[in-house]
Amino acid sequence: MRELELIEEMERALRAGAEGAAGGSRVVRGLGDDAAVVRASGYAVTSVDTLVDGVHFRSGQLTPAEIGHRALGSALSDLAAMGAAPGEAYLGLAFPPGTELDAALALFGGAEALARRCGVTIAGGDVTASPVLMVSVTVVGWAQEPGELVGRDGARAGDLVAVTGGLGAAGAGLALLEGRAGTDALPADAAERLHAAYAQPLPRLAAGRALSTLGATAMIDLSDGLATDARHVARRSGVHIELELARLPLADGVREVAEQLGVPPHEFAATAGEDFELCVSLPAASRSAVEANWAELAGPAAPALSWIGRIRDGAAGLTLAGAGRELSGYEHSS
Amino acid sequence: MRELELIEEMERALRAGAEGAAGGSRVVRGLGDDAAVVRASGYAVTSVDTLVDGVHFRSGQLTPAEIGHRALGSALSDLAAMGAAPGEAYLGLAFPPGTELDAALALFGGAEALARRCGVTIAGGDVTASPVLMVSVTVVGWAQEPGELVGRDGARAGDLVAVTGGLGAAGAGLALLEGRAGTDALPADAAERLHAAYAQPLPRLAAGRALSTLGATAMIDLSDGLATDARHVARRSGVHIELELARLPLADGVREVAEQLGVPPHEFAATAGEDFELCVSLPAASRSAVEANWAELAGPAAPALSWIGRIRDGAAGLTLAGAGRELSGYEHSS
Repeated sequence: MRELELIEEMERALRAGAEGAAGGSRVVRGLGDDAAVVRASGYAVTSVDTLVDGVHFRSGQLTPAEIGHRALGSALSDLAAMGAAPGEAYLGLAFPPGTELDAALALFGGAEALARRCGVTIAGGDVTASPVLMVSVTVVGWAQEPGELVGRDGARAGDLVAVTGGLGAAGAGLALLEGRAGTDALPADAAERLHAAYAQPLPRLAAGRALSTLGATAMIDLSDGLATDARHVARRSGVHIELELARLPLADGVREVAEQLGVPPHEFAATAGEDFELCVSLPAASRSAVEANWAELAGPAAPALSWIGRIRDGAAGLTLAGAGRELSGYEHSS
Repeated sequence: MRELELIEEMERALRAGAEGAAGGSRVVRGLGDDAAVVRASGYAVTSVDTLVDGVHFRSGQLTPAEIGHRALGSALSDLAAMGAAPGEAYLGLAFPPGTELDAALALFGGAEALARRCGVTIAGGDVTASPVLMVSVTVVGWAQEPGELVGRDGARAGDLVAVTGGLGAAGAGLALLEGRAGTDALPADAAERLHAAYAQPLPRLAAGRALSTLGATAMIDLSDGLATDARHVARRSGVHIELELARLPLADGVREVAEQLGVPPHEFAATAGEDFELCVSLPAASRSAVEANWAELAGPAAPALSWIGRIRDGAAGLTLAGAGRELSGYEHSS
């Protein structure tokens, strides 16, 4: 199909999607104009995330729908880590020569399905030709007061550190996908769940807002792996973070995959990236209140919350007690 | 320089830029967190624009600073066409292997200088490796009331149609840059101005807001050329637009370049894209008020406003009276 036709068809799909989703949302004008118009209030929380084929994913390893899902999911994870309420998404799509319309529509459909599930409106976007497949996502969330939002800079000595969900799942899913590990030793259904963790991550939007309500002092999403992301919080907050490696919650099947890869499972969980779980600091005094209210506030699909360490004074940095070596997380660059 | 180093250095530059620009702006949190936080009010106007090397520009033809300027300028032109007040910009930068840090910083500097000139804060962004140079820009403008904003769908029979500035300048600048035309026959300084129109376009932000205040019923920026963009307005407004080719204002030097290319100059002006001038419809009764207040409202650097046609009932479409053939504008695809 000719590039210009593909672009026109995709612009039509984006426009139809934006019009369909606009009912009940903040969107006053969607695609078809020079810009989208959205009813604002309070504070806008904005993040931009660009995924490039061969750098952040490989198109041979994922279906088009998974690529669309994953691009939007990783962007929305940044809103989750701020405790923002999700609002709108804008998709910049760049398709290489020879892209089939069906594949392009499936990619958009994957993003659209996740948006619907998360209460996000795809309000605009841009389609272009490119030598390489690329998805650039801008997401906007909202908060009534800046105090509802949680940065990386508020962790204080005495706080406890927790993470949501199980770690290492996306990294293990990628290892299975690349054939670096096999599925024979895995618990039933684990392979499928590990694949989904990599290919169709669900941003922890409800958990992020619950943690904000429960008094989170700092929060970050685990896109680069805990060993790297916790260091970002330590540096920005000017504190020392002490985590206990043995306490990291392993997602089902991660132990078996890590053993096949010859990596101690908890080290794998600390360094494998793209889990899109949340790492959070909370005042120690609030621990029992957090536990008592977690399930109700974080909603029906609430992930487990695991206490993995604490914040103390000292040189800004991270200690991972129990690690056999200096650990650092996954690096995005190819 | 290694890709990861380049990315880290550029993230540092983005962060420093966002911090420097934050004073007095709406930005509460800039880079360094999971997302930027901006004080909102009224309505947010958002546009996304992706420029890919080899598709929308050729890196051999422009300096890095010009590439940064042009990417931000073309995105801001969409806010101008809505009559929005400029607010923030978010830059997604993708650099190919071997990019020098100086070039990457110069590209960012070109965008930053234009942002400063336009009262825009670069509040966030994203840097990644990529096989191809790519700049994805998200711009956000603001309006207190939706009525302050001008869509493409409000043109009504009886309205007059005007354009800002001179047309064909960017197309002529590109022809000079590509050696398809020479500078010998041009008026003094024209070559330089035509080059700047292509390489460093200035979005018509003040003019767009002035036209909104003066009662514009529909507005669009001329990114694809008047012959294409006026059709967008006709289709979205459900009206017929009649323009007189001979009335199109030619930018200085466009006549000489078009003649060298063997294209009638006014046809060139109607079809050459990326002028980033505004095409607007206004009620006929307001013409004298518009002319009387134009210079004051559109500011000290107000572009000329030229009346080029009118809106009438009839099948949605465009008539370009005086054209020797069916004209359509520049197409973005390579």
